[in-house]
Amino acid sequence: MPKKIAIIGSGMMGSALAFPAFENGNEVRLVGTPLDREIIDECRKVGKHPKFDYPFPVGVKYYQFEEWKEAVEGVDFVIGGVSSFGVDWFLEEVLTYLDPSVPVLSVTKGLINLEDGTLISYPDYWERELSKKGIVREVCAIGGPCTSYELVYHDQTEVAFCGKNTKVLKMMKEAMQTSYYHISLTNDVIGLESAVALKNGYALAIAMTIGLVNRHHGPEAGLHFNSQAAAFYQGVKEMRYLLEMQGASRDCENIGIGDLYVTVYGGRTRKVGILLGEGKTYQEAMDILAGVTLESLVVSRRVYAAMEKKAERGLVDLKKFPMLCHAAAVLDKGADAELPWEAFTFDETK
Amino acid sequence: MPKKIAIIGSGMMGSALAFPAFENGNEVRLVGTPLDREIIDECRKVGKHPKFDYPFPVGVKYYQFEEWKEAVEGVDFVIGGVSSFGVDWFLEEVLTYLDPSVPVLSVTKGLINLEDGTLISYPDYWERELSKKGIVREVCAIGGPCTSYELVYHDQTEVAFCGKNTKVLKMMKEAMQTSYYHISLTNDVIGLESAVALKNGYALAIAMTIGLVNRHHGPEAGLHFNSQAAAFYQGVKEMRYLLEMQGASRDCENIGIGDLYVTVYGGRTRKVGILLGEGKTYQEAMDILAGVTLESLVVSRRVYAAMEKKAERGLVDLKKFPMLCHAAAVLDKGADAELPWEAFTFDETK
Repeated sequence: MPKKIAIIGSGMMGSALAFPAFENGNEVRLVGTPLDREIIDECRKVGKHPKFDYPFPVGVKYYQFEEWKEAVEGVDFVIGGVSSFGVDWFLEEVLTYLDPSVPVLSVTKGLINLEDGTLISYPDYWERELSKKGIVREVCAIGGPCTSYELVYHDQTEVAFCGKNTKVLKMMKEAMQTSYYHISLTNDVIGLESAVALKNGYALAIAMTIGLVNRHHGPEAGLHFNSQAAAFYQGVKEMRYLLEMQGASRDCENIGIGDLYVTVYGGRTRKVGILLGEGKTYQEAMDILAGVTLESLVVSRRVYAAMEKKAERGLVDLKKFPMLCHAAAVLDKGADAELPWEAFTFDETK
Repeated sequence: MPKKIAIIGSGMMGSALAFPAFENGNEVRLVGTPLDREIIDECRKVGKHPKFDYPFPVGVKYYQFEEWKEAVEGVDFVIGGVSSFGVDWFLEEVLTYLDPSVPVLSVTKGLINLEDGTLISYPDYWERELSKKGIVREVCAIGGPCTSYELVYHDQTEVAFCGKNTKVLKMMKEAMQTSYYHISLTNDVIGLESAVALKNGYALAIAMTIGLVNRHHGPEAGLHFNSQAAAFYQGVKEMRYLLEMQGASRDCENIGIGDLYVTVYGGRTRKVGILLGEGKTYQEAMDILAGVTLESLVVSRRVYAAMEKKAERGLVDLKKFPMLCHAAAVLDKGADAELPWEAFTFDETK
């Protein structure tokens, strides 16, 4: 049965989800945040997101933020499409006022590091903060290798939805799945959310190898995948240690490895990593990429800060994470991007 | 202390290993197989392998196969550099006559499927066959993401050496490690050899997604990594099931995932996969790639045959391997390359 779905946040990922949602026969209402005013204006005028190559399906409805309460009236669920910089805004301006019986599916990727080094998911964060206000609500989330513009292109995409309530997850999958948008389901919220957030520091370090090849051999050097694959191997190794600490399921780990793969190719993280690999300082890279938002770096730093704290408490050995430490040193301590390759070897002989 | 090393087989991978071996201060003797006659002739004339961009370091010595016994005189170890098509030749013409006290390090990647569906490594195969002749010898092997021309380029490369004898492995690592060739060590021979062989069917299927994008959107479609990442995720999932069956260590699994990554990019498997994805039949793809040897497809078929046999015996459920089955069906049953995407989803909800 078709559903009514409101998407709050008309950035690229939130907006991209309007495609499978609408094409599967649902009513879709796309709501801009106060930062999205011009996007919504343009959608109303020409039916196309300014950053997409294709128009929205005809029939998607557009709302400015002032109209959000109208937009969520009678919906079966709400998709939270804010960036990680909008997490508190979404909490204060939407979740606090939204009927707790209306399920929410969040597409915001990230983790928050608590003071003791614990890394929690955004759904967990929202649930904790809402409970302080006396509001009991669960938040479901989307993870997996999906770039927005390729979803708009109807590329084959595999993601997972996580949440505590299986019935709600199944309803959401039925509503959203299409011939190109394939949805796995898990109750392992922290596992999935960790899997798709922990990749950031690793994608950054893998991208550095591309810049390093440019630096050592010139930009016309052609194919050089040995070092990329070596860094990918080490990234997978460290991600698996981290995900084990987070108690993630094996399927969530696999989704995280797929997400690492797409982030090396499709994301903004790639651009920063290449510039750092080429020998630019962090500040120079930021100047070159002025205007690009870098959620991924925020998450990388949080993960590193969490591991540093856990190491202080004797709970982890940072020697198991040479690539994470390296990425952090390049970002914030001016270290050269050349990776500590020999530290990536293992010796499991007896 | 510098070593004397003979490399038997002057194909691309055997020859590439002459670079780290010689640059680390060892004496290196490169021996062609009977198929390599012209390569050795050319090496003697111009000091360069015909397929490499760079000359060999000055000082590498070259031998035709008739001179192999001279070449192995007094060596500390022999590197076996034959392709998987030369496995029996290497057994009959070299291993049968080589002093069993001289360690051998093989770079040949692959697995052999026994009648009951068991997959064994080449070192295991050679050891079994030699023991039938009353010869007791162990064979060490190299696995990991390494393409030969990039090793020649001195790209940063991470591999692992496996073998039963730790002392021998450590000697080989000391002899071969350089500032760009980094070596992990493991006694898990079947684990490492499985990890780097099982990737082939998966690399093929991932490469198909590139061809599928060309077919659906035209070759100018630009970046399309969602489907590649989705296939990569599924490939990792199935490889991990297979490696669990093979009893592989976690570090070997990680090396295998790195090897999968490099094979999607650097290998011949990629070319076949793209052609199949674009809609060519297997025969058409073979005609287009005439002259290219496709060891990877031999291994893919063996792995699939082994799993089919195990499934018949009730030991595995082929439903856990939809991508392996799909790759086999495209190769040998004329199936269309479009992947069974929904079969890649999981549901681990309670």
